[in-house]
Amino acid sequence: MVDNYHALGLDALISVGGDGSMRIAQRLGALGLRIVGVPKTIDQDLGATDYTFGFNTAVQTATDAIDRLRDTAISHDRVMVLELMGRNAGWIALCSALAGGAHVCIIPEIPYRIDPIVATIRRRRERGQPFSLVIIAEGARPAEGQQSLAGPRKAGAMPQLFGAGYKLGSELQPHLQLELRVTVLGHIQRGGSPTQFDRILGTRFGAAAVDAVVAGKFGSMVALRTPDIVTVPIAEACANERRVDPQGQLVQAARDVGVCFGDETP
Amino acid sequence: MVDNYHALGLDALISVGGDGSMRIAQRLGALGLRIVGVPKTIDQDLGATDYTFGFNTAVQTATDAIDRLRDTAISHDRVMVLELMGRNAGWIALCSALAGGAHVCIIPEIPYRIDPIVATIRRRRERGQPFSLVIIAEGARPAEGQQSLAGPRKAGAMPQLFGAGYKLGSELQPHLQLELRVTVLGHIQRGGSPTQFDRILGTRFGAAAVDAVVAGKFGSMVALRTPDIVTVPIAEACANERRVDPQGQLVQAARDVGVCFGDETP
Amino acid sequence: MVDNYHALGLDALISVGGDGSMRIAQRLGALGLRIVGVPKTIDQDLGATDYTFGFNTAVQTATDAIDRLRDTAISHDRVMVLELMGRNAGWIALCSALAGGAHVCIIPEIPYRIDPIVATIRRRRERGQPFSLVIIAEGARPAEGQQSLAGPRKAGAMPQLFGAGYKLGSELQPHLQLELRVTVLGHIQRGGSPTQFDRILGTRFGAAAVDAVVAGKFGSMVALRTPDIVTVPIAEACANERRVDPQGQLVQAARDVGVCFGDETP
Amino acid sequence: MVDNYHALGLDALISVGGDGSMRIAQRLGALGLRIVGVPKTIDQDLGATDYTFGFNTAVQTATDAIDRLRDTAISHDRVMVLELMGRNAGWIALCSALAGGAHVCIIPEIPYRIDPIVATIRRRRERGQPFSLVIIAEGARPAEGQQSLAGPRKAGAMPQLFGAGYKLGSELQPHLQLELRVTVLGHIQRGGSPTQFDRILGTRFGAAAVDAVVAGKFGSMVALRTPDIVTVPIAEACANERRVDPQGQLVQAARDVGVCFGDETP
Repeated sequence: MVDNYHALGLDALISVGGDGSMRIAQRLGALGLRIVGVPKTIDQDLGATDYTFGFNTAVQTATDAIDRLRDTAISHDRVMVLELMGRNAGWIALCSALAGGAHVCIIPEIPYRIDPIVATIRRRRERGQPFSLVIIAEGARPAEGQQSLAGPRKAGAMPQLFGAGYKLGSELQPHLQLELRVTVLGHIQRGGSPTQFDRILGTRFGAAAVDAVVAGKFGSMVALRTPDIVTVPIAEACANERRVDPQGQLVQAARDVGVCFGDETP
Repeated sequence: MVDNYHALGLDALISVGGDGSMRIAQRLGALGLRIVGVPKTIDQDLGATDYTFGFNTAVQTATDAIDRLRDTAISHDRVMVLELMGRNAGWIALCSALAGGAHVCIIPEIPYRIDPIVATIRRRRERGQPFSLVIIAEGARPAEGQQSLAGPRKAGAMPQLFGAGYKLGSELQPHLQLELRVTVLGHIQRGGSPTQFDRILGTRFGAAAVDAVVAGKFGSMVALRTPDIVTVPIAEACANERRVDPQGQLVQAARDVGVCFGDETP
Repeated sequence: MVDNYHALGLDALISVGGDGSMRIAQRLGALGLRIVGVPKTIDQDLGATDYTFGFNTAVQTATDAIDRLRDTAISHDRVMVLELMGRNAGWIALCSALAGGAHVCIIPEIPYRIDPIVATIRRRRERGQPFSLVIIAEGARPAEGQQSLAGPRKAGAMPQLFGAGYKLGSELQPHLQLELRVTVLGHIQRGGSPTQFDRILGTRFGAAAVDAVVAGKFGSMVALRTPDIVTVPIAEACANERRVDPQGQLVQAARDVGVCFGDETP
Repeated sequence: MVDNYHALGLDALISVGGDGSMRIAQRLGALGLRIVGVPKTIDQDLGATDYTFGFNTAVQTATDAIDRLRDTAISHDRVMVLELMGRNAGWIALCSALAGGAHVCIIPEIPYRIDPIVATIRRRRERGQPFSLVIIAEGARPAEGQQSLAGPRKAGAMPQLFGAGYKLGSELQPHLQLELRVTVLGHIQRGGSPTQFDRILGTRFGAAAVDAVVAGKFGSMVALRTPDIVTVPIAEACANERRVDPQGQLVQAARDVGVCFGDETP
């Protein structure tokens, strides 16, 4: 990459991506390239910015899916398990669960046990609501066990998360008198016409990145500190993977409206 | 059901459903109940009517999903396999493939082999389009093999189709130099705010069913014969499961625009 | 156009459009051009085909608008008047009114008086529903009066319909104790990502038009006779402007579910 | 209201609304009612909170409308004027213009002249883009002139903004060789299924308002200070109508990508 940069006679490089891309950008900067970062990932797992673009659209798509699943859940008295993306962060799952009015939300930051989930579904049934919507992040971790992976990790590649929804579904089914179905939304979350929020954020990030290049602010990443776009050191964005705070306001709001996270004591 | 009908002192019964519900309605009619049918199924597998309501919405939802998958397919040079519903009929898969501009469409009515699919994906790659969208109906049948089922059929229950997309994906992957991902849209196809087409059809069917009761046309089902709503004997609707005609216009139009059905001779 | 056709050395011409375009195609055919027509208009006012493409999408967009207006109508006890397109045909207005659950629907084919509309809105109010949704086609005609036009007709141009919604609103307001708002959806109905129905129809029409050229069926237009695509003489499509039948099934179904057309005797 | 509060034996009152509702809440608080405010307005014109709920959905609906208008603008070489809501604030117009890629954006905070708008449209035409999308807020003010109103202000009522889009359209048309159409999106902006962002914000505001009542924080309003929900004095929220800063980042980003605001010197 360094060779190509020089061979092409580039003045500067704008790197658009997530966590991995920003780490590479940081290393390229250390090797002398004049680089500015733009935070783009649906996973929202990058520090130093309120939002990355792509996230808002992904949560909208997932929320639309929950709205649709709810109809069959109600009409057929079903437990619907929906697996969403997010890698090691629960942002997509948590925000979609809140927006979609889900009853259970399993995220990597809160290891789960089966018992409280079963209790939640049963309690709803006893109250005359024999259907439940269960959201699970692909990176979910059982309190006793590991993340679900597609297979052994390949050298140099990130492990591919796979199967969290089916695992949870097969664990839950024996404990329920209701039918259960698992849906994996998959890459449907990664595309489509972006929401207005993501379009504005992308436009502002783009304009700010050009300004940063003009101003010579290399080694920096543009970031949203609502309502402002600022620049921060790429190193700061990479320093901490941004994850859901189990004690934070968002999880607490979800608990307040009755969402089960799988860590409750019955 | 007969006992309940009489115990409730019903004058007549309007039965809303698909293939299975209409067969039951037919039997109840033979047992003396005054019954009128309304065709509702996303699978569109009921004879004697141009459209059943629910189908239009399901195909719209599936088409939206293909639109979203296309973006990641293109940006990541991926082969995206999307499994859609439809039971033994390929209507949802075929119509969604046409509307979404898919490159491969596997339906139960046309048994498939792997070779022509691999050839299609390779040919696209050689032409500079290293991505492909593959649609497969849950009821797809390999030329040599069986439909994919969730497990042994339970007594009295319909067999649960499961796994067609993952099976095709795992068969294709070894033959490709591209990454492949499988998505199963599942029950997301069965809900949500209905399209205008389904709302109008449902309203017209409902009004016509009431008219049929008033007119004493028992044993009949309301049906769309574009642009009219008519009544037909329920028996006629049940006589033939409505399936895609492999030699019909719709399949031919898809072949004309380059869609591979898995039965081509290389 | 004839000169250009020959200068370009064209073998044949495929003309895509509505009523006006098909009349021109017919004349060009009479002048010796080898021409095939494809019916495309949101107005659905072309004969000889079950549907023109564009119509399904326009009705979906209008139905979405009605869904949105309903919320404010209910929360603010308002009468919402929505003007829709369609030129001299009421198809968009009628289908959107049915799909959107409107209470009043004014179309060019049924000249309207104010009295029955006022009576409908008052009756709803007395029943505890102090809001109403009123759909009016741009080409609406009062029983005593003319269509609303933007100004004097320009030579050689079609008259521009304008103001039907505002006219009706200002006539209704003095008779109501409710606030009333007029919205004109305008060209928002003419664009956007097409519905699956329109995409499939467009794809099938396109393939069939090429087939018609290959088969030498000049002077013909492709048409949908559900479920088939056929060819018909362009002359047949132009012979009759296709308009809503005031005694037809669709209007009757709307009356059955309580829609007021402005021609009722109180 | 004070009498009713006591007659009903209320412990506390949660007031949900915008600018006007919060002023009333403030006065009721001064009269001894135990009141907590929740900021809800599509206009986003309330201080002390990053976002009010309803705004995100309104901008999404307006952006979808721009996407649809663009198609006809391009296919017919038209100038499309779209009037959006927002009362005296330009937030909806500005954000929708950015998200929808409009070419001109007229907001109340930046008084406009016709000349720079005409120059922008002409320049686009000369560059081979003979279409333009013009967004105008209902509260727009010409540099020489007044806001457009529906009629004389009624005693005790807010003035009803009306006609800004038609006024601009009729001023522009004589200067252009292109056809121009005006669309007023109206109350379509105020309803529909809310976006995930508004659903989460509404849920969090609701939970926080209950917490504020429990904690006895009367006279306060819940507010978003990203990423936290906080409480602020209602008085602070009412002190300043929140309006677009003509020198702020958002306007500057729009200028950077070429948007004309009507105040440019040619």
